[in-house]
Amino acid sequence: MYKIAILGASGYTGAELIRIISNHPEMEIKVLAGHSKAGLTMEKVFPHLRSIKLPSLIKIEDADFSNIDLCFCALPHKTSQEIIKSLPSNLKIIDLSADFRLNNAADYEKWYGNDHQALEIQDEVVYGLTEFYRQEIRSARVVAGTGCNAAIGQYILRPLIEKDTIDVENIILDLKCAVSGAGRSLKENLLHSELSEGSNSYSAGGVHRHLGEFDQELSKVAGRAVNIQFTPHLIPANRGILATAYVVGDGAVVNETLYQRYKNEYFIHILPFGETPSTHHVRGSNECHIGIVSDRIKNRCIIVAALDNLTKGSSGQAIQNANLMLALDETLGLNLVPVFP
Amino acid sequence: MYKIAILGASGYTGAELIRIISNHPEMEIKVLAGHSKAGLTMEKVFPHLRSIKLPSLIKIEDADFSNIDLCFCALPHKTSQEIIKSLPSNLKIIDLSADFRLNNAADYEKWYGNDHQALEIQDEVVYGLTEFYRQEIRSARVVAGTGCNAAIGQYILRPLIEKDTIDVENIILDLKCAVSGAGRSLKENLLHSELSEGSNSYSAGGVHRHLGEFDQELSKVAGRAVNIQFTPHLIPANRGILATAYVVGDGAVVNETLYQRYKNEYFIHILPFGETPSTHHVRGSNECHIGIVSDRIKNRCIIVAALDNLTKGSSGQAIQNANLMLALDETLGLNLVPVFP
Amino acid sequence: MYKIAILGASGYTGAELIRIISNHPEMEIKVLAGHSKAGLTMEKVFPHLRSIKLPSLIKIEDADFSNIDLCFCALPHKTSQEIIKSLPSNLKIIDLSADFRLNNAADYEKWYGNDHQALEIQDEVVYGLTEFYRQEIRSARVVAGTGCNAAIGQYILRPLIEKDTIDVENIILDLKCAVSGAGRSLKENLLHSELSEGSNSYSAGGVHRHLGEFDQELSKVAGRAVNIQFTPHLIPANRGILATAYVVGDGAVVNETLYQRYKNEYFIHILPFGETPSTHHVRGSNECHIGIVSDRIKNRCIIVAALDNLTKGSSGQAIQNANLMLALDETLGLNLVPVFP
Amino acid sequence: MYKIAILGASGYTGAELIRIISNHPEMEIKVLAGHSKAGLTMEKVFPHLRSIKLPSLIKIEDADFSNIDLCFCALPHKTSQEIIKSLPSNLKIIDLSADFRLNNAADYEKWYGNDHQALEIQDEVVYGLTEFYRQEIRSARVVAGTGCNAAIGQYILRPLIEKDTIDVENIILDLKCAVSGAGRSLKENLLHSELSEGSNSYSAGGVHRHLGEFDQELSKVAGRAVNIQFTPHLIPANRGILATAYVVGDGAVVNETLYQRYKNEYFIHILPFGETPSTHHVRGSNECHIGIVSDRIKNRCIIVAALDNLTKGSSGQAIQNANLMLALDETLGLNLVPVFP
Repeated sequence: MYKIAILGASGYTGAELIRIISNHPEMEIKVLAGHSKAGLTMEKVFPHLRSIKLPSLIKIEDADFSNIDLCFCALPHKTSQEIIKSLPSNLKIIDLSADFRLNNAADYEKWYGNDHQALEIQDEVVYGLTEFYRQEIRSARVVAGTGCNAAIGQYILRPLIEKDTIDVENIILDLKCAVSGAGRSLKENLLHSELSEGSNSYSAGGVHRHLGEFDQELSKVAGRAVNIQFTPHLIPANRGILATAYVVGDGAVVNETLYQRYKNEYFIHILPFGETPSTHHVRGSNECHIGIVSDRIKNRCIIVAALDNLTKGSSGQAIQNANLMLALDETLGLNLVPVFP
Repeated sequence: MYKIAILGASGYTGAELIRIISNHPEMEIKVLAGHSKAGLTMEKVFPHLRSIKLPSLIKIEDADFSNIDLCFCALPHKTSQEIIKSLPSNLKIIDLSADFRLNNAADYEKWYGNDHQALEIQDEVVYGLTEFYRQEIRSARVVAGTGCNAAIGQYILRPLIEKDTIDVENIILDLKCAVSGAGRSLKENLLHSELSEGSNSYSAGGVHRHLGEFDQELSKVAGRAVNIQFTPHLIPANRGILATAYVVGDGAVVNETLYQRYKNEYFIHILPFGETPSTHHVRGSNECHIGIVSDRIKNRCIIVAALDNLTKGSSGQAIQNANLMLALDETLGLNLVPVFP
Repeated sequence: MYKIAILGASGYTGAELIRIISNHPEMEIKVLAGHSKAGLTMEKVFPHLRSIKLPSLIKIEDADFSNIDLCFCALPHKTSQEIIKSLPSNLKIIDLSADFRLNNAADYEKWYGNDHQALEIQDEVVYGLTEFYRQEIRSARVVAGTGCNAAIGQYILRPLIEKDTIDVENIILDLKCAVSGAGRSLKENLLHSELSEGSNSYSAGGVHRHLGEFDQELSKVAGRAVNIQFTPHLIPANRGILATAYVVGDGAVVNETLYQRYKNEYFIHILPFGETPSTHHVRGSNECHIGIVSDRIKNRCIIVAALDNLTKGSSGQAIQNANLMLALDETLGLNLVPVFP
Repeated sequence: MYKIAILGASGYTGAELIRIISNHPEMEIKVLAGHSKAGLTMEKVFPHLRSIKLPSLIKIEDADFSNIDLCFCALPHKTSQEIIKSLPSNLKIIDLSADFRLNNAADYEKWYGNDHQALEIQDEVVYGLTEFYRQEIRSARVVAGTGCNAAIGQYILRPLIEKDTIDVENIILDLKCAVSGAGRSLKENLLHSELSEGSNSYSAGGVHRHLGEFDQELSKVAGRAVNIQFTPHLIPANRGILATAYVVGDGAVVNETLYQRYKNEYFIHILPFGETPSTHHVRGSNECHIGIVSDRIKNRCIIVAALDNLTKGSSGQAIQNANLMLALDETLGLNLVPVFP
């Protein structure tokens, strides 16, 4: 049994890690650390974990990492860099924050507004989009989990850019995002009264931070600068992202390209051509469902994808990467059937 | 007091008409007719109308139109044509169905799959997008209420196409739609269990029927064929449409064009440049809020609009048109402050 | 036109007062004051009020009350006492907080945990349950709006206790409460992620503060000490309280007693015997629907009531009382048809 | 691996059985049968099961039971009796319908309105409330799964009645029920538009069919006729029942009685005295959380319980019983951590 630590266990991604690891046959949780809620039992912090035997939440500085095989960091960005810098330098780490996703310090500063605090670690970090960095992740010491929006967008776009199937100058990505992506933070717009029964866009016009990841990764794939248009919208749901991509390219070719790329992937499912997925049908699972539809306008098509932001979009991805880093079967502990209704 | 009949009063748009007319100073409801629920009191059909004195639901064939000044038809399409054909030929009518929106019989058959049953009436019908057909509506006998999706899309696009502000070859309209737009029909995908807590697209790829209206109207404005891309998505909310339009054009010019077009319109509000609206803030009102944001990509911008599909998108629009047809103040009875939270 | 001030206009009850007064034919808003959000336009604080011409939010100490005819205080308790003490002593005031609901200083301290700060005003305060204090409210200078839970419970129980129809030793009141009753405050349990898709009880066992009102008012009606059992539950909805009362008494007699008491009340509707109401059907209105069902157990019955906590439960009640205090028709501005769906 | 058949696999309890069995180490699904949807793949019927290899839905009459070890029937009542009568007489069966819950034919007819069709089987049926019929279930051929409301109510009440801790003449059970309990049927009141954002009671006054089970079981425990008051309410959620029981008895004794009864039960958790549970925290799991609070009125207390109606309330219970019938570890496949948020 591999011994696991989770830093930042009082947030939603922390709780989701615990949920998955609780049924993982080769991992056991040894350290749970938090900040504002240190000292509390997990039952107090997350009553839905009441029936699981778990260590209480401690302060990070009180954690003993000597026997830990792998450490998940589910801390806010900026804090994450500072903490990770202080951890043992041989500890395997998966960081779920944004702090190590961008290779370039200037990019990090541009999108996150603060200096990079741990450049010495950045160099050894592997970007955590499992299906595209599998080999590198296997031997990585530090993996940077992707943004949830960045994950779903790349699942749609990477194979199409790689195979030159679409016009990279005309990519629009419109997201419908559940609210848990915003975390457990106390903000007025996250209150039930403000959020339920309606929808709104946010960070429109190319200012959402996940664009840093899109720019970096998609440009790398294309071998030239790629800038997409990206608008996320908040919808009244707790889990799930539905991504609608509008691209210039032939629907059948797009469909075939995605099908070929993912037909051997365990968690990514291409729907029959012409069908589209729903976030209802991936809830709580590590699956990503993708459907392609040709538009009535020649050479345009729409690609719709669905995943659970807390699972495939963050904590499930993290476990999948951890399996690779620990030389386990990549799917171990991740056969989570979607919970519907 | 003008005497009003509502045919199809057991659906949501019928109920919304009743809600608004109940506080309208110059209208009184004389006839409520339905089909499957004829014979019932409105309290049985819609308990939220319990406190309003209303006639019981009768069969349409039992309705006496001799004293009726204006008749709203909130019937399903196809049925609507058949019924309207049989109504007194001098009766003022506002049809909320899709049956008279398309001028051309072939277009109607293409999008709705059945022959047009009342071509003799079609010729005198005026399309009901109030802010663009105001004069014609004033003197019309029959007005065809617009599709709710078609209304919000045209509010965004018509002034921009008219002023040649955007590239008509590259218009993408992505909608997030509340479920009441699908009516009170018994379909599995409209059940709470199937719909809440998630999202999905539908009629993707250019097959949604409201495209018939978009094609007709936007081409008329442009003076050439315009075909937009249009993808609606269902979100777990009862009222409201959020429309996100992706266009090629300068954000500031787009903003100014829309501002100038609507600055004297009572119900359409252009937000400060760079802000975007929310469907939470129009619920139950006849307002449409529109916000414009420039994209980081040069000459691209995003326009987001919000309205309540049951009010500004159908029944509120219908009352606004009825006011014009009855030579009343256009806003009479429509000062409905949004209900929030 | 009567000139109105609203203190605490950045909360939900403040916004609801504005929504109703905007269509009130005899009131106009002259002063809007807040605390943390002073200086902002109301459009910033509540974008759903965007289309209404309103004064900006000012600090309470900067408000000019010289021309104000009536002032609504929608402030947190404790703050409310302090502010009201400082207002002109001839100003008509309706306080929506809990600060003046309890006649007895010791009761106030017991339930609210702090000293009463304005005992000199308490003596002239009238309790704001309109249908039971109508005469006193007409001539009152200061009216204490009731708790929303206390309102719905009393609508059920007062007539039954007064007519000795039920056993006062065995009254159980089980409430299902929407979340706007908790206000716009930033608390973890009010986040959409924590609240949607589930339910829980709170303040169970007789510790909810509204019991202070129940004890005071029901004992007054009974002429002896009455203590009810009262358990509120949070449900995932924004507006509405559904109250289920379990009483010992004959269903038919209970039904008749309530019917006779309320048959001439404008806003309270007794359903046909055996039917029960729904909060869906009172949303946004000033109505209270009450239904009575006999239990299969002899001499037991269930009474279910529904009202909108923000309207009939607080701001609508407040306007109704204001109408009385200003010698206007009690129902003026309150013909708010429920918004459904 | 035990071979499993599921009849009625196109409903929610059928889907939930599949979800659980998919991760069960000792069961494999061999037959999935339905009625109206026979011929479809499960992916069409329930797209959330897309990634699981499953047999297509066949007609029940086409099913081959020769190698089946255990058959779950998730059919509507009445249909269930007819089908089960026709199944091989040595087949182990767990029926999730109401058809075999009542021992007495007259009781069945009274509550369900039709004659009992399979009295010859009724005699060998064991009632499926696992924690109270464990021994009998181990050797049963046919087990009748309990009603979901009946399960949660009995978890609260059985130990208290057995130990004579409460007054059996004064038991009130008020339930807040998610909508999946009503199944996947097309009824107007189950539409999202009708159900979301509000609450209502149903079957009030002692007419809900689950009272047949309560009467039978609680009277058996008490050794005398026990009739409780029971009112279910629909809330806008998909999964979960919150039960609030009002009893006459000492809170501390009640708490101790429940704690002692359940301290060795794997799935039932008694909260610290004075705390109450939430349905949010059991979603998707086989857990039942119970909390006890003393009322301020002497010798009265409130017991609040939460479970997921589709899991512990039906399909999870069924798997738990199947484990017993197949001589497996009772908890096998049921370590389902609640999905939150």
